[in-house]
Amino acid sequence: MSGRWVLGVDIGGTNLVVASVPLAPGHPAAVRSRDTIPARGPDAAVRDIGAMAEEVIDATIAEFGGAREDFVGVGIGCPGPLDLTTGVVISTPNLGWDGYPIRARISEVVGLPATLDNDGNCATYGEWWRGAGQGASSIAGVTVGTGIGGGLVVDGQVLRGVSGSAGEIGHMTIDFSGRRCACGNVGCLEAYTSGPNIAARAREGLAGRIDSILASLVDGQLDRITARTVYDGVVRGDAYAADVMKETAKILGVGVANIVNVFNPEVVVIVGGVTRAGEYLFGPLREEVGRRAFPSAVSACSIVPGALPETAGVIGAAGIFVAEHERIG
Amino acid sequence: MSGRWVLGVDIGGTNLVVASVPLAPGHPAAVRSRDTIPARGPDAAVRDIGAMAEEVIDATIAEFGGAREDFVGVGIGCPGPLDLTTGVVISTPNLGWDGYPIRARISEVVGLPATLDNDGNCATYGEWWRGAGQGASSIAGVTVGTGIGGGLVVDGQVLRGVSGSAGEIGHMTIDFSGRRCACGNVGCLEAYTSGPNIAARAREGLAGRIDSILASLVDGQLDRITARTVYDGVVRGDAYAADVMKETAKILGVGVANIVNVFNPEVVVIVGGVTRAGEYLFGPLREEVGRRAFPSAVSACSIVPGALPETAGVIGAAGIFVAEHERIG
Repeated sequence: MSGRWVLGVDIGGTNLVVASVPLAPGHPAAVRSRDTIPARGPDAAVRDIGAMAEEVIDATIAEFGGAREDFVGVGIGCPGPLDLTTGVVISTPNLGWDGYPIRARISEVVGLPATLDNDGNCATYGEWWRGAGQGASSIAGVTVGTGIGGGLVVDGQVLRGVSGSAGEIGHMTIDFSGRRCACGNVGCLEAYTSGPNIAARAREGLAGRIDSILASLVDGQLDRITARTVYDGVVRGDAYAADVMKETAKILGVGVANIVNVFNPEVVVIVGGVTRAGEYLFGPLREEVGRRAFPSAVSACSIVPGALPETAGVIGAAGIFVAEHERIG
Repeated sequence: MSGRWVLGVDIGGTNLVVASVPLAPGHPAAVRSRDTIPARGPDAAVRDIGAMAEEVIDATIAEFGGAREDFVGVGIGCPGPLDLTTGVVISTPNLGWDGYPIRARISEVVGLPATLDNDGNCATYGEWWRGAGQGASSIAGVTVGTGIGGGLVVDGQVLRGVSGSAGEIGHMTIDFSGRRCACGNVGCLEAYTSGPNIAARAREGLAGRIDSILASLVDGQLDRITARTVYDGVVRGDAYAADVMKETAKILGVGVANIVNVFNPEVVVIVGGVTRAGEYLFGPLREEVGRRAFPSAVSACSIVPGALPETAGVIGAAGIFVAEHERIG
């Protein structure tokens, strides 16, 4: 049962993910992941992606048959802002790469035509194409990871804006005199709810909280606390961890309420490891949205976890390649 | 030189405006305005609109010739959220009208087919159709008045969302533990920057400020301070009024930065009397946007005052009637 494939590449602050995405409906094959290690610079990451692509193509052919010619292109997702016309990374607070022609370099190393889009657009498009928002007239994605990203898909089209940087939901100000963000501003949604900031807030409040098990979960080395540690604390019944999670959920809810008021989407999909917290996250999040957004817009909107854990980005990047190629001809 | 016309109706928290808008490019004719007095209820407002419509039609025919048959319909703009399918006002914090079939009632009293859209959508569409954003691929409007509204037009289409309430920019949270808003939440953009809230902030800070002339501008009756009083103080060189205006501009800038980050529009148009403050407003506003939004999105975006003072709403409401009728056939 061979068919045609698109390679999906998802460049994150923490992981590089490469997979084969079938053109026909179906799951991705040969999903491979490596550490990004952004400080190595983009050339090293591109070399890794090239090697991973070879491995993914070989593994896919080994499992499903077919040949290299069945791979028609590469869809790339990368943190932005990006110049979508030239395929260049303009500035990426969470990677530190500036002015790098990522699309051309990956196309070259893989030997296939490539498209590039914002990682948040890709994850959102993936969830609309084959995930939790299938068939929705409008979907807003909020990706929670090293940073907070997002995307907007209306009538099947990614809303990119005039210079391709729409969907930067993480840098929406929700507290104008609030926490310092990695982007240099204060009070961005990301400054509270990204993985590293969830961890930072947990560490900050931990001083003197001898009733919490969080410190013991990292053998007293507080700098090893991650968002995952907080989640582990929550499921073990730690009240302090539950407070941190609830605060995170409420603040994410403020951001989602803004999106609901401004966009009135049919679906808001939350993508990322944080969704493993389930009702610990979605309960207070939905409550906050209900408190802050217009009732008619709230009742018209489903707020759901992504249905494609780990692969929304690669699936969406590949889906955007497909859409671009349909458009081109 | 007669031609065909659409009546534009703009229902605001303070004024009702009715005018004749030509189908062919050109300025509106016979612009008439009255106090809304929302507490009278919607039936009284509709009666006024009916009388104003007769007057507008007569005045237009008297000036330009033609006949009643040259008036093809009514475009209505009204604060929302609205049910655009049924033409019903669902809930309007600034009017207090709930569940009122405004489109049918106005169509009836005027005797012409009618369309209804959110006042913010209308003002934004007006500025895109015949104002400051003509021809822009994407425009976001921010209307500053009794409330803060807004709208989004992408590729000539109003972005309405799944239940018609997109564009509620005024109820975006920008300070999650901040000022109480008329909508019941805290920290909405509107809670700082609407006309009544500019006035309220000015009053609140005035206690003990014997160096300010604001109190003398209202003969010591502080409850008579309006946003206009603040503006009058600014142009007379009052340092306190200038501070209030600067704070207003910065907070509006936070809201505009959010729109720029999320939407990446080609044009952001600020509509309302507050734009009379000129550089007192736009200087600190643009500075704040530059501080908070992604540089590539900022440099791709013009932030400008509306070009259709008092009439963006009626022009846009009429324009939406025209667009709807082109679509219908």
